[in-house]
Amino acid sequence: MFVSFWPKILLLACGMLVATTVQAEIPKETRDALKLDRSATPRQLYDALVKRYKDPAQGAGRGSHAKYWEPIPFSKYLDPESFYKPPSTVKEVASREQCVKCHADESPVWVNAWKKSAHANLDRIRRLTPNDATFYKKTKLEEVESNLRSLGKLGASEQLKEVGCIDCHVDVNAKKRADHRTDLRMPTADVCATCHLQEFAERESERDTLTWPKDQWPKGRPSHALDYQANVETTTWAGMQQREIAEGCTMCHQNQTKCDGCHTRHEFSVVEARKPQACAMCHSGIDHNNWENYQLSKHGTNVATRGDSWNWNVPLAEAFSKGGQTAPTCQTCHMEYQGRYSHNMVRKVRWANYPRNAGIAENIKSEWSGKRLEAWVKTCTNCHSETLSRSYLELMDKGTFQALALYQEANKVVQKLYDEKLLPGQITNRPAPPPPDVEGLGQFYSFFLAKGNNPALVEFVELNMGENQLPKTHVALAHVNPGNWSYSDGYEQLNFMYTQIMDEDVKIREMVALKERVARLETTKRTSLLDTDSSTTLASLGGLGGAMLAAGGVAVVGWRRRDKATR
Amino acid sequence: MFVSFWPKILLLACGMLVATTVQAEIPKETRDALKLDRSATPRQLYDALVKRYKDPAQGAGRGSHAKYWEPIPFSKYLDPESFYKPPSTVKEVASREQCVKCHADESPVWVNAWKKSAHANLDRIRRLTPNDATFYKKTKLEEVESNLRSLGKLGASEQLKEVGCIDCHVDVNAKKRADHRTDLRMPTADVCATCHLQEFAERESERDTLTWPKDQWPKGRPSHALDYQANVETTTWAGMQQREIAEGCTMCHQNQTKCDGCHTRHEFSVVEARKPQACAMCHSGIDHNNWENYQLSKHGTNVATRGDSWNWNVPLAEAFSKGGQTAPTCQTCHMEYQGRYSHNMVRKVRWANYPRNAGIAENIKSEWSGKRLEAWVKTCTNCHSETLSRSYLELMDKGTFQALALYQEANKVVQKLYDEKLLPGQITNRPAPPPPDVEGLGQFYSFFLAKGNNPALVEFVELNMGENQLPKTHVALAHVNPGNWSYSDGYEQLNFMYTQIMDEDVKIREMVALKERVARLETTKRTSLLDTDSSTTLASLGGLGGAMLAAGGVAVVGWRRRDKATR
Amino acid sequence: MFVSFWPKILLLACGMLVATTVQAEIPKETRDALKLDRSATPRQLYDALVKRYKDPAQGAGRGSHAKYWEPIPFSKYLDPESFYKPPSTVKEVASREQCVKCHADESPVWVNAWKKSAHANLDRIRRLTPNDATFYKKTKLEEVESNLRSLGKLGASEQLKEVGCIDCHVDVNAKKRADHRTDLRMPTADVCATCHLQEFAERESERDTLTWPKDQWPKGRPSHALDYQANVETTTWAGMQQREIAEGCTMCHQNQTKCDGCHTRHEFSVVEARKPQACAMCHSGIDHNNWENYQLSKHGTNVATRGDSWNWNVPLAEAFSKGGQTAPTCQTCHMEYQGRYSHNMVRKVRWANYPRNAGIAENIKSEWSGKRLEAWVKTCTNCHSETLSRSYLELMDKGTFQALALYQEANKVVQKLYDEKLLPGQITNRPAPPPPDVEGLGQFYSFFLAKGNNPALVEFVELNMGENQLPKTHVALAHVNPGNWSYSDGYEQLNFMYTQIMDEDVKIREMVALKERVARLETTKRTSLLDTDSSTTLASLGGLGGAMLAAGGVAVVGWRRRDKATR
Repeated sequence: MFVSFWPKILLLACGMLVATTVQAEIPKETRDALKLDRSATPRQLYDALVKRYKDPAQGAGRGSHAKYWEPIPFSKYLDPESFYKPPSTVKEVASREQCVKCHADESPVWVNAWKKSAHANLDRIRRLTPNDATFYKKTKLEEVESNLRSLGKLGASEQLKEVGCIDCHVDVNAKKRADHRTDLRMPTADVCATCHLQEFAERESERDTLTWPKDQWPKGRPSHALDYQANVETTTWAGMQQREIAEGCTMCHQNQTKCDGCHTRHEFSVVEARKPQACAMCHSGIDHNNWENYQLSKHGTNVATRGDSWNWNVPLAEAFSKGGQTAPTCQTCHMEYQGRYSHNMVRKVRWANYPRNAGIAENIKSEWSGKRLEAWVKTCTNCHSETLSRSYLELMDKGTFQALALYQEANKVVQKLYDEKLLPGQITNRPAPPPPDVEGLGQFYSFFLAKGNNPALVEFVELNMGENQLPKTHVALAHVNPGNWSYSDGYEQLNFMYTQIMDEDVKIREMVALKERVARLETTKRTSLLDTDSSTTLASLGGLGGAMLAAGGVAVVGWRRRDKATR
Repeated sequence: MFVSFWPKILLLACGMLVATTVQAEIPKETRDALKLDRSATPRQLYDALVKRYKDPAQGAGRGSHAKYWEPIPFSKYLDPESFYKPPSTVKEVASREQCVKCHADESPVWVNAWKKSAHANLDRIRRLTPNDATFYKKTKLEEVESNLRSLGKLGASEQLKEVGCIDCHVDVNAKKRADHRTDLRMPTADVCATCHLQEFAERESERDTLTWPKDQWPKGRPSHALDYQANVETTTWAGMQQREIAEGCTMCHQNQTKCDGCHTRHEFSVVEARKPQACAMCHSGIDHNNWENYQLSKHGTNVATRGDSWNWNVPLAEAFSKGGQTAPTCQTCHMEYQGRYSHNMVRKVRWANYPRNAGIAENIKSEWSGKRLEAWVKTCTNCHSETLSRSYLELMDKGTFQALALYQEANKVVQKLYDEKLLPGQITNRPAPPPPDVEGLGQFYSFFLAKGNNPALVEFVELNMGENQLPKTHVALAHVNPGNWSYSDGYEQLNFMYTQIMDEDVKIREMVALKERVARLETTKRTSLLDTDSSTTLASLGGLGGAMLAAGGVAVVGWRRRDKATR
Repeated sequence: MFVSFWPKILLLACGMLVATTVQAEIPKETRDALKLDRSATPRQLYDALVKRYKDPAQGAGRGSHAKYWEPIPFSKYLDPESFYKPPSTVKEVASREQCVKCHADESPVWVNAWKKSAHANLDRIRRLTPNDATFYKKTKLEEVESNLRSLGKLGASEQLKEVGCIDCHVDVNAKKRADHRTDLRMPTADVCATCHLQEFAERESERDTLTWPKDQWPKGRPSHALDYQANVETTTWAGMQQREIAEGCTMCHQNQTKCDGCHTRHEFSVVEARKPQACAMCHSGIDHNNWENYQLSKHGTNVATRGDSWNWNVPLAEAFSKGGQTAPTCQTCHMEYQGRYSHNMVRKVRWANYPRNAGIAENIKSEWSGKRLEAWVKTCTNCHSETLSRSYLELMDKGTFQALALYQEANKVVQKLYDEKLLPGQITNRPAPPPPDVEGLGQFYSFFLAKGNNPALVEFVELNMGENQLPKTHVALAHVNPGNWSYSDGYEQLNFMYTQIMDEDVKIREMVALKERVARLETTKRTSLLDTDSSTTLASLGGLGGAMLAAGGVAVVGWRRRDKATR
């Protein structure tokens, strides 16, 4: 709760002073993890970050399921460190100028886009004056040059002239000609970090600031910093033979390896990166429809209707005050923490999108989550009163719990069917999934590796409910899209899926009961009439009728025994 | 049909003259309802409107199901009149200037947005000249001051200096300091009406101009003016225990209580309110996907591609002529009636979105509906010939009837299953819904309060067909999105749901028939073999097998009687 | 693969020279088809094109199913050549100036939009200088006048003054007054071609450049040039009694008949036609969600975030170089072929959206398809390296094959159920579709003409899988929207549908097996007990229980015979 009048003002003023002086700092958690103090040089910071970044034991590369899958040709663009090889067929050895000249014909939009970029116009940045809304870029350029000097890439009195093809794709500030066949590289995040060390450090700090109290998720996840690791460690992804389908996952799970997921090459426009659509390709869809919910929320429609009158060139910290923004973007909420903006987007994570995951709901009222809730309150009070903010965040949490409860009720029904081996085809035609996945109810593989009767329909519905529809309900609550948590999507759809499950449950059990009655009749018939075709009947029971046998947990052997007893 | 050449021109010219002089009028229906004549002062109009607006007997407040539900903390922002209490923890007593100063830190975007608003720049409006596209705002300001004088809120020669925090949140033109704990209010529509009386009167006139010939809907509904009433009078909404989920409904059904559903605080940009996205958050989704259909119609794509070259600051009446608009927005069609634009959006309502509702389809060819159709023809002829307009509106009506026919066929099949008590689990596990809802087939509660086998899957599908898919089909027709009424959505989806229902019908009846055959066999067995386990059989019949018993309308007692008779 | 350094540059330079000189050419295939050489005059080209265009034997008009359907009043706007009649009620006889003057009142937006158009501002175009980005329009105007002179519509030294209402709706460069009742026309594509001959010829060349090696599709289809033919030749469309629903199909399938599908009347803005939303109304939805996929791809989001800084007035060929575009639109990829841009959009068609269609997948590795793949590589290298382009296109093809394989597996299961007559209600309640459709499994009519148990649910799912979901998966791959081919849509949804089918298969067969067991019991009962109610049993078998009888391919007659034999 807010304290009295003037002290609060003073507090805020102090906060702003502090914010300015530590602007270029990285979280203490990361300094501790890297064993660096505040006096570390750029080189020391860079070396420590990159060592960890490239360490397979800490999330780099193909991961623990590497033996199950092979890269496809396109993979080299998604994990260049693991798979990129320069093209053997392009024989040109080119200077800085020749790169540009030739590619103006070979791939003209690369060059056009670059010519519009800050990279190609460093002099324009040097000429900025403090009155300019983008004056901060001049400071940024000086910081970049300072980094390069610390790394020995720029002379003490040398100015960076430009950032051209050769700087990113061969070596920063390269003076020599480069051979396509041996020198070319696809820039990984550490290459960008040569200049943009602060941003890289911020992104990498996601590994350190998201530590779950009961290991609900692995350390530092979910995050951009380890999203490629999350991908390759997914058993279903690794086990899929359909590598081109699977590469669809990787195309979003690639922020760990590169920076151009948000900063589209080769203009690298900050305006683009600050607009909400920058996040839309990946943060949309069936299980995390953040974009869809945001876009049609009042937040999103205000941006859609008024955004063309705002100045998107100002830094995020000035978006509201100087840019004229009157509504939040993805960036102004998720890159903010305690009033500062950085490339660490996970410091306020609480539900992590998946309310059904073990330990997540239980954790919401913990101190860990409470501190993060307070950080959200601070974010919301940019535009709302504290009372409104708290009451809305409470609505969000409670609504999520209500949706979770419905899911859990449905989950139990399907679990019981599975335990009793009553799912259609469960006994007769449920092939094991390809390794490293293992058989189980409602596993993630059900979405991608359906085979025979694995999964059953009701099981798919349950998984869809928990893995997709429940997250979507929460995401709608989190992004203030009321129709999508109550009616158009969210709770109504959860009710639909619940209905499917309850309906199926009663039908499956009715069928089992009827089969039992028929079996009982058949037994009697055989007993009384010395029926000659009992072997046929038993064969058919072993086939399609088999599921019935397991209904009461009675195996075929047991059933025969009872059969005999009746006789 | 259009009459001869010159007379028509004259008629139109006269129409325009009339339109100008009665610009500031409200519909006769409302004057009659309020017992006011044209000479009523602003104060008289204000008092009459507000008296009705705040009357619980006429739609204000918690409604007739109030005993079933409690507000949540967030509710105070959706129905401030019923639930808002000033914060007891904020102790500041602040002057007009102090409000702004302190909130520039507390919730800076409030202040930033306000500073851009007309409210903070009344002098800029006073300086407008007739050449300015927004000169109408000067007239509007004079009207506002005239209202305030009539209400005794502004001195006879006093000018309104600004509209700041304190004016809306405490008292218009307040001169004193205000105490957060006692004086603060959340502005309800009547607060806005203090200045914007004309707009409020227009909105409130929705209560009077939408009177259904056979009470298809309650008087004045559906409308913005009574959308909160529509919400709280919905039995399912009132009966839900999941209040946070239910509040999702309220977040759109709140135009009755407040004005910021369309006019986002605190810039209150008319540009925003005139763009189609202003309507999108609420008018989208599963049962009224107006936004989705409009957005991808040629109307919507013309706005998307050309809208950035138009002047959105001109009033709606000049959007085409002076604003350069070449395609309609939500506003230019739905706020228009007989060539005039107002905040009454229901004067051309005919289908009211729900073609299956009792009496709606039957009413389409009535005189009542015919007059409204003529008003639509006039709207369309802004941009289209009369012949095209009429032929398209005919297409819309007939297409809706065709979709309705398919729904009705499916509805009968499900109704029969329900009447014969054949829905899965209908006899054994169909709990009553929480009050005030009562048991019934395909009731609205099925969407939100699924429990056990209430509803059955086939019943949910039928409800979805009638309550969501049929409206969506009509909405696509109404918004000229051909794919969404024919193939991508609409009729194809209705065919899918029809197929689900027909398929389920045959399966349910096959199962019933088979159970009957088994029961007959069991009877015979018992008769002939003096079966010893007949009690077991009866028990199982009483459980899952029970539905079968009702197949022919025969209850358990009756069945036993026949059983005996057979013996 | 690219060749050595300098020769490539020279090659490109030459290519560009050639491109300039043959800019106004049409494909050789079309000249050959029309038996015209390069020296043909505009009149000769026009006459040859229009003769074919209006020939019912070559795709004009109502087509071969004309006897099955009647137009509705709105149809005259979709196929004016077949159905438009001037309005008999509008008696005005008006001059060029009177058209404009009167319609400024009658349908003001027509006139407003036209006043902003190039058509109303030819003088503005004449004044353009070579420095202007739209200088190409001056050349275009000269070409238009040259066409008109060749057609005898413009005097040798006469300049076109304007293109007003009368030019398109009565006669180009008309000097006389026109009678609404006799002279009015709705402009078909050949009317536009009077001036815009090159564009018409390009569009018409789609008939000639899309010739499938094994007649996978009819010649020249799918294309804009023959999309109305595709519509009226569709048996389901022709057989539907719901003409207003069916007209929804026609509203997109009308690019053959008119030009305003992309060029919205009456501004005919090239900016609109160049923006991706111009394609969105039709190229969206359940089976070809091109728009949805593009919009949220990085291509689409770059346009959404940066497009407001580009010059959309430059011609497509200069969009990247002079317009500042940094990402592709629909137009820059699909209107391009070998570096040139035209209204022929089918020269790179390979999968034609429907991977399951006969002969499509088999053709992907053919020489025919290979040449088109090479053309795509050239398109992609505008912005990407050749290696990346090839590896991505390979990913697209392989991913499509993987999705196809899953569909084919599911298809076999449903086909087997159909062949064995096991679909629910297949024997008892499967009415024939209305002609010209004929009974079959998973026919297109299932989507629109569901009746009784035709189709079965599992059949609808299979059709949805092959006709909608599989195309959507391919479209996502083709438009680089990874979530939509892997998780949010695409493969996950295909797995869902596969699961539905497999689940249904096991349930249907379990029911059949159980019915067989019951029938066997009934037989025994009758044999042993001289059952008196066997007639009742047989009646029930003839009804709902009938499907069981066909399970093993045994007809009722056969069953009775066996029955007797058992006795």
